[in-house]
Formats: sequence, structure tokens, C-alpha cells
Amino acid sequence: MADNDRTISDIGEFGFIRSIQDGCLVSPEKLVLGIGDDCAVLGPHNGDFILLTTDLLIEDVHFVLGQIPPHHLGQKAAAVNLSDIAAMGGKARHLLISLASPRDMPLQTLHAIYDGAKTMCGQHRVNIIGGDTSASPDRLVISITAMGDVPQGEVLYRRGARPGDIVYVTGTLGDSAAGLRVLRGAASGPEQLVSALTRAHHLPVPRLQAGRAAAESQLASAMIDLSDGLVSDLGHICEASGVGARIQNAGLPLSRELRALAEIADVDPISLALTGGEDYELLITVPPKNCRAFENRFREMEGSPLSPIGEITRETGLTVCHPDGRETPPPTGGFEHFARP
Amino acid sequence: MADNDRTISDIGEFGFIRSIQDGCLVSPEKLVLGIGDDCAVLGPHNGDFILLTTDLLIEDVHFVLGQIPPHHLGQKAAAVNLSDIAAMGGKARHLLISLASPRDMPLQTLHAIYDGAKTMCGQHRVNIIGGDTSASPDRLVISITAMGDVPQGEVLYRRGARPGDIVYVTGTLGDSAAGLRVLRGAASGPEQLVSALTRAHHLPVPRLQAGRAAAESQLASAMIDLSDGLVSDLGHICEASGVGARIQNAGLPLSRELRALAEIADVDPISLALTGGEDYELLITVPPKNCRAFENRFREMEGSPLSPIGEITRETGLTVCHPDGRETPPPTGGFEHFARP
Repeated sequence: MADNDRTISDIGEFGFIRSIQDGCLVSPEKLVLGIGDDCAVLGPHNGDFILLTTDLLIEDVHFVLGQIPPHHLGQKAAAVNLSDIAAMGGKARHLLISLASPRDMPLQTLHAIYDGAKTMCGQHRVNIIGGDTSASPDRLVISITAMGDVPQGEVLYRRGARPGDIVYVTGTLGDSAAGLRVLRGAASGPEQLVSALTRAHHLPVPRLQAGRAAAESQLASAMIDLSDGLVSDLGHICEASGVGARIQNAGLPLSRELRALAEIADVDPISLALTGGEDYELLITVPPKNCRAFENRFREMEGSPLSPIGEITRETGLTVCHPDGRETPPPTGGFEHFARP
Repeated sequence: MADNDRTISDIGEFGFIRSIQDGCLVSPEKLVLGIGDDCAVLGPHNGDFILLTTDLLIEDVHFVLGQIPPHHLGQKAAAVNLSDIAAMGGKARHLLISLASPRDMPLQTLHAIYDGAKTMCGQHRVNIIGGDTSASPDRLVISITAMGDVPQGEVLYRRGARPGDIVYVTGTLGDSAAGLRVLRGAASGPEQLVSALTRAHHLPVPRLQAGRAAAESQLASAMIDLSDGLVSDLGHICEASGVGARIQNAGLPLSRELRALAEIADVDPISLALTGGEDYELLITVPPKNCRAFENRFREMEGSPLSPIGEITRETGLTVCHPDGRETPPPTGGFEHFARP
């Protein structure tokens, strides 16, 4: 195919990001890290690094207005950005919210979105300090930029994982993807189950406390948040660190609700946990000698269960280890914006 | 009209911004200014304030892909954000670029947009440090966040204008709006004229050097960039400062090209200069005792002509003074996203 016939679908999101990196940095002064991690890292300023991250949410790509209550949409839009700050070990400080709206959008809907963002920000003592408001021909567009900071010696990158490190995740995996299946009518169950799983999809919790704890402990080697799915995001850690990983399926933390749904619907919980995406839990790698102290640190913290799910290997590539002893490549999947249908 | 029947068009962009401000600031520590100026202001960090600003550009609202070369679009998208940094007196440092693209968008187009942004950033030693890439169902969406800094004692806000201050603008006014008329087929002229004016619309120059000079001089009282149009943006200065202003039409700086177009096409250059928008020049207010020193300061600087165009008044509201001595309210106009057709 001639180069000038190619579309963005031909190289995908990550190929595109690689293709635009040359020439981005012209003034390296006070810049620690540009494109390539959960946040850009600037500084130091008074001993702290500044973290910047941004996410774009488009109606009918990232959300469907009839499916998610606008208040939840506002909470989620803020949460996914705060999650990127958490993934570097940062304290979230400020948010910019831009919104492009069709002219006939009810004011109530837009105010509910803002109120949702304020609720999420209020819970984490984050200010909303600006943004942009404009018209959009037909679809709602939300763009959020979050700013945080982290003490210079504590920031955790994707690139720090070393062979032998244990891979941990916070919380449970696959609930958000199960919720999305339910919303799309691909799975169903009792009201309470359905409601818990759609809630996991609509109201992810940014793991800011856990991220700070991991960073402050100085016991971890790398961290990322699980937005694209475990396989994809652990893949980012491995690529940045020049290593591989083995995932123990038996160790994947599954919620009671996801297990219950799997019993009554055509849903493979392990597959959702591996590739589902949008869990916004943290994946943290820890050198073996630090694991006991690291686990103790988390044991003291309420609401952030920590599960070891595998280890970093010298050989690159990901391997999935099944409970019966089989070892396979990971299932394909994970969210890719420009995937062909 | 019942409150829950209202749409965003009923209160407009600025009404909407006012309506969402409550509850945005929950943690005022190290926050100097939130919503309400060209940038949010944070800090101080090592004696500098940090500036953050963001702009959302939507296809068919802010640009038409067939009308603007993608390289120019990238330059403009970066420039309008850098202009907001200039408007606070800042040095621009870093840019985040998010892009949502239809799946069939030619890679060449997207790369040209990025290359344009890199060109603009390179000219001003600004790094591109991150962003987001996602799919969009049909329209291209560009969201840019710019970060800069300014020494703590030098930042210029909208709110500092005082009665008697002289109002200056950099460059010439109305060229961008004339270029847009030409692009829309509402005016035409010789190729060279048309090309200069569409260029003014597509390739605005962020006045970073002029903005720094105004701030560094510590002679000015307020500053804003002219994005919505002179009347609208001077109105923002007046509202924030609790004052009014008189604009002398005879003083409005008009380019040779705009004057030439006005002679052959149905275009009122004064009206375009007053309400046209997207000039991205700076409007600066200066106390009378500082004017001579301020003008001298700009006289030494190449490429940034400075014109006095009026003065700040104690009485609120804007008055336009015509060359024949008549005084009128300003023409309505200026860009309002949610204006009803």
C-alpha cells in the first residue's frame, strides 16, 4: 500500500503515537519525561515533579448518553484522568474540563456532567480550574486535563520493571468489561448483579491512595493503571522495561459479582480480567526482596486489596499460566481505538 | 420556560461558564486563579507561577478540513493555545495534543496536523509532551493544553484595568475575519490579497514576545488576547475590572490588505476590526503615567507594532467613538458558540 493511501486504522493508536514522537522535544530544560507513560513529568519544582495527563471522551465511542447517567459520566471522565495521576504515584491537584456540546443539549444534562466531575474532584480535594466550552455539530465531546505532583524521588514509571519482580494489581479485574456486556445486552442476570457490574463500568475509582502508598513506600519498581486491559497494559510495562511477564490465571482477583454472572451467563471471567479494560485498578511491580514489606504496607490500608498475579521475566513477551499447568500466549483483545470491525 | 427545558443555547457560552463555577475550588492551596482568565494560574513554584490553558477545536465548528491545509490547522491549533499563555505574560513551555479521528482519516492528514503543531512549537521552543489519540465517529476533534510560566510579580490578569488607562493592541485587526469571509465566498479580490487574508485566518501568530515584554516591563495593568473579537474581549477586561471603555475607531490598526479588500468588496473594515475575532493579537491596558516608557519598550521590538485604540472609563459599558464625533454603542457580534442562527 502506498504510504499516502494509508489511514490511521492501518497503524492503530500505538503505531500512530510512535509515528509522531520525533521532533516533539525541542527544549529539554525541566522536562523529565514526555510522551510514553501515564503522565508527562516536569520539574523539579521545589523538590516535586509536576504530572500532566489528558483524555478525550467522544460520544458513541467512549460513552452512550442514553446508557450512562450524566452525573456518572462526569464522575468517570474525571476519574480516568485522576487514575493516570495515581499511576505515577502522584497527588492529584487540578483539573481542566473542556466540553463541546450540540446546541440543543439540555442544560440539565451538562450541569449533571459538571456536578459529577465536581463530586469526583471533591472526594480527592482536586480543583476544577478551567477549560473550554464550545459547540459541537452533533456529538458531545469531553476533554479533561489533570495536573498533579509527586516528590521527586518517589515517581513510578512504566520502565522500571526488572526480571523476577512480582506483579500485583489492586482491586478486582473484569467487572467493568462485564458491566459493558450487560449494558450492551450481551449478558444479563438478577437486578442486583447487573447494577453492581454496570456501576463498576460507570463509576471506576481512581486509586490515588494506593498509588501514593506505592510511591511513598519506595518499594515498587514500576506502575501503570489498567485502562486498556491487563494484557495490554502489562504489555506497556514490559515494552518500556525491556522485559516479559508470566500471568498466573489462578491469581487473578475476581469479584463475587463477576463469578456469579459467569455462572448464569455466557461470560468468561478470566478472559474479561485479562483483556476487558477500564478497570482503572493499578498494576504495580515489586522486587522480591521488597514484597513482604510492600504487602504489609497495603494490608494496613482499607479498601485497596492487593493481589500478586504473576512475575516479570527476562524473556520478552507475555505468557498466561493456566491452573492446569498449560502455558499459552495471552488472548488478543484489549481496547484498540482503530481496530477494524 | 421551565428550568429543565432549557438548553445551553438559552444561556450561551459565558452564561454556562458562570453557571458551573460554584464548587470548583475545594483546595485553594497553591492556586492563584481558577476559571475566568486566559489561563489558570498556579504556584508559586521557585518564584514562578505556572499557567495552564486548554482549547477544543471541532471539525465544522472551528475549521473545515477542505478549507485549511492540515499543516496550517496544526499550526493554528497550537498557536491559539500559545496565545493564551502570551496573554498572561508567560513563557510557553509544553503542549499536550489530543486528537480524535475518524477511522478512515488519511495518515498523511494527521501527520501534517502534528507537523504543523511541531513547526509552531519549534518556533517558540515549546515541547509536545503528551496527549491522547482516539477514534471519532465522523468529525476530527483536536484538544490542546498548553503550559507556561511567568515570574510571580509579572503576571497580567484581565482584572487590572483602571479608569484612565490607555488601551493598546498589537498588530492589525480584522484580517482574520476578512480571510474567513473570503474563504466562505462572501468577498473576493486579487489572488495576492486573498492569499494574505486567508493566511491571517489560518496562521495567527501567538504574540509571546510582546506578551513577555508587557509583563516584564511591569508598566501594564491588564492584558487579554483577541480571540472572540475586540468588543467582546475588551468587554471581558472591563467586566473583570469593573470598568468601561471608549474605543476610538480612527485608531484601529488596519492592514493594507484589509483596506484594499474594503475598496473592492462589500466589507466594512472597522466592523471587522471591532467584532471579527481570531486575530490573536494582544490587548493591553497601561496607566497614563507609564505610556511613554511602554511605547518606547515596544518601539525597540521588531514585528510587534503597538496602537493606542482607546481608554478605560469609570462608567461601565463600551462606547465606540466615530471619526465624525458621533458616539455609539459597539456593534453586536463577536463569536458566540451557541448563538441561535
